[in-house]
Amino acid sequence: MTVLVSTKAEALDGWCTGLAAHLPDEVVKPAADAVNDPTIEFAVLWQQPGDLIANLPNLKAIFSLGAGVDHILRDTNLPDVPIVRVVAEDLTSRMSEYVVWRVLDHFRQGRLYREQQSAHLWSERPQLAAGAVSVGILGMGELGQDAAKKLQMLGFNVCGWSRSAKEVSGVKGYSGAAGLQDCLAASDIVVVLLPLTAQTRGLIDNRFLSAMKRKTPLGGPVLINAGRGGLQKSEDILAALSDGRLMEASLDVFEQEPLPSDSPFWAHPRVFVTPHAAAASDPGALARVIAGQIKAYRAGKPLSGIVDRQAGY
Amino acid sequence: MTVLVSTKAEALDGWCTGLAAHLPDEVVKPAADAVNDPTIEFAVLWQQPGDLIANLPNLKAIFSLGAGVDHILRDTNLPDVPIVRVVAEDLTSRMSEYVVWRVLDHFRQGRLYREQQSAHLWSERPQLAAGAVSVGILGMGELGQDAAKKLQMLGFNVCGWSRSAKEVSGVKGYSGAAGLQDCLAASDIVVVLLPLTAQTRGLIDNRFLSAMKRKTPLGGPVLINAGRGGLQKSEDILAALSDGRLMEASLDVFEQEPLPSDSPFWAHPRVFVTPHAAAASDPGALARVIAGQIKAYRAGKPLSGIVDRQAGY
Ligand SMILES: NC(=O)c1ccc[n+]([C@@H]2O[C@H](COP(=O)([O-])OP(=O)(O)OC[C@H]3O[C@@H](n4cnc5c(N)ncnc54)[C@H](OP(=O)(O)O)[C@@H]3O)[C@@H](O)[C@H]2O)c1
Ligand SMILES: NC(=O)c1ccc[n+]([C@@H]2O[C@H](COP(=O)([O-])OP(=O)(O)OC[C@H]3O[C@@H](n4cnc5c(N)ncnc54)[C@H](OP(=O)(O)O)[C@@H]3O)[C@@H](O)[C@H]2O)c1
Repeated sequence: MTVLVSTKAEALDGWCTGLAAHLPDEVVKPAADAVNDPTIEFAVLWQQPGDLIANLPNLKAIFSLGAGVDHILRDTNLPDVPIVRVVAEDLTSRMSEYVVWRVLDHFRQGRLYREQQSAHLWSERPQLAAGAVSVGILGMGELGQDAAKKLQMLGFNVCGWSRSAKEVSGVKGYSGAAGLQDCLAASDIVVVLLPLTAQTRGLIDNRFLSAMKRKTPLGGPVLINAGRGGLQKSEDILAALSDGRLMEASLDVFEQEPLPSDSPFWAHPRVFVTPHAAAASDPGALARVIAGQIKAYRAGKPLSGIVDRQAGY
Repeated sequence: MTVLVSTKAEALDGWCTGLAAHLPDEVVKPAADAVNDPTIEFAVLWQQPGDLIANLPNLKAIFSLGAGVDHILRDTNLPDVPIVRVVAEDLTSRMSEYVVWRVLDHFRQGRLYREQQSAHLWSERPQLAAGAVSVGILGMGELGQDAAKKLQMLGFNVCGWSRSAKEVSGVKGYSGAAGLQDCLAASDIVVVLLPLTAQTRGLIDNRFLSAMKRKTPLGGPVLINAGRGGLQKSEDILAALSDGRLMEASLDVFEQEPLPSDSPFWAHPRVFVTPHAAAASDPGALARVIAGQIKAYRAGKPLSGIVDRQAGY
């Protein structure tokens, strides 16, 4: 039977080859000629075109190529089959690399030292130890928990916010709307690793930014968003950077991607922009994981990582 | 009795106050009027002026304010008392912050993404996972071992070079001149955390740079030096950056400090300069540790972290 793959053009080959290598008993094919094909039982997707999978009579399950599924759920004609997200050490570790990198660059005053270097200025700045700083992680799922662990290991104090209250070792847990206010008020650096859902869309708005800690030992609060662009309101972030509610930001995701070339974020001296590159889904590592789920399904075993459509993640 | 403190003018107050707070039974005083003072039993030093401590008749021990002691040993009239280095979690963690920060910035292509941002260019670059990259740590002492552990936890492969061969869990250990060649040939990123001694002075020279791995998955080898400036030959590093033996470098220490404002390092696009700020000795955290040793000594207990003068560290 057939596994359908739909993703960005430049990644399509890698995914088809990778999946085929691990699924010798299936036909793996790109999405071009999918319509109504009764042999298609599995769809492996990243931002599929609308209706691509609406009319597949024998579809058994949908796999996201990444941790997020918002790009799948926005399709209003989704068939009623399980939607499965990726859980993989390769993906999780990459996100933690990004988070630790960005936290350290803000915390260790990377921007100031780069400016001083441009000015040929030798001047050691007062520097706190990590233990004097608190990082709040919004979204304590697969990615948030791993980032928390690695930040703790470097000495940072870490707290977390999630939908259900959770106590991870040494990480103070918050939940609910009041919990968000408390978590923001307790954090010098806020790292957003939330999924984009009806509840979280536009969360990082003026209200949120005003609730961030104003006086931090770093001179002002820092925002790092590697969740989804739809979580944030660009205008509000820019306003907060201007009026002192926000000192610096690292943004990997944007409401509109690619980020338009006239976005003020590009030239903002206190914003670091990456092109949705925090944690790439590497077919070399992840095709094996998705193929493993398809093989498990064929063997009559349950799929793991099934998304709650109602919750949106 | 008296504890003498000699350090940079801007840090003197913090150290005197910090030590006094933990040593109610001692007089703590700055170095200004030390000569021949028979009440002085302990000297706490950072780059003391020549002969400062040559004529103290009752000196019992010398404490370095940091991990290194090269700044003490260069005094040719040192009295024959134990010289003690600092071992403290605060100091070790700060160095690991710096090492992880710099490794991640090179590994995650910080320079390219900053350039792309300046050009308003949205372009995701191929990105390896940490597991595809090897970091070699030269100097597997207090600082090197902690950095190794934290880099491993982020997924990097780590090997280490030290004077005596050592097997730290999961870290391939090298020693000796041949071991250095092997370690350099095995490392995509080389982190130098060696002390400055007669053996290590000038180690990072043309020969060393030529032994670094030429083809690395990052596009070329990376050098990070947070040991001492005297370990490196600036001219040779600049030549290696020019002729392709070295791709990028992060340098925290220099042969001449402050780095002269006409040094080519300042404006080099592939070099990141910090002003000997990798791991500051914070009196708030370290005065307690040094005071603890003085109290232990008074109580007849042995000092820990005594330096081998012959070895120079
Ligand atoms: N930029 C990139 O390159 C990149 C790469 C990969 C993933 N991502 C993003 O990262 C997101 C998180 O990934 P993951 O694997 O960690 O997801 P996950 O395992 O599903 O975890 C999501 C976390 O968010 C919390 N959450 C969801 N809705 C919430 C709400 N309304 N209020 C408070 N907390 C809420 C969840 O709470 P509970 O624990 O209570 O369920 C959970 O802790 C993905 O959805 C994706 O958007 C970005
Ligand atoms: N930039 C900064 O802000 C900053 C701050 C603190 C410290 N430092 C520097 O960091 C250095 C290391 O600190 P540490 O606490 O880790 O020192 P340490 O505990 O004394 O360890 C030194 C390491 O270097 C190795 N080594 C010494 N001579 C060697 C040689 N000739 N060949 C090969 N390996 C050799 C030692 O080998 P063995 O294990 O076999 O003895 C040991 O592994 C300090 O000396 C100081 O210069 C810099």
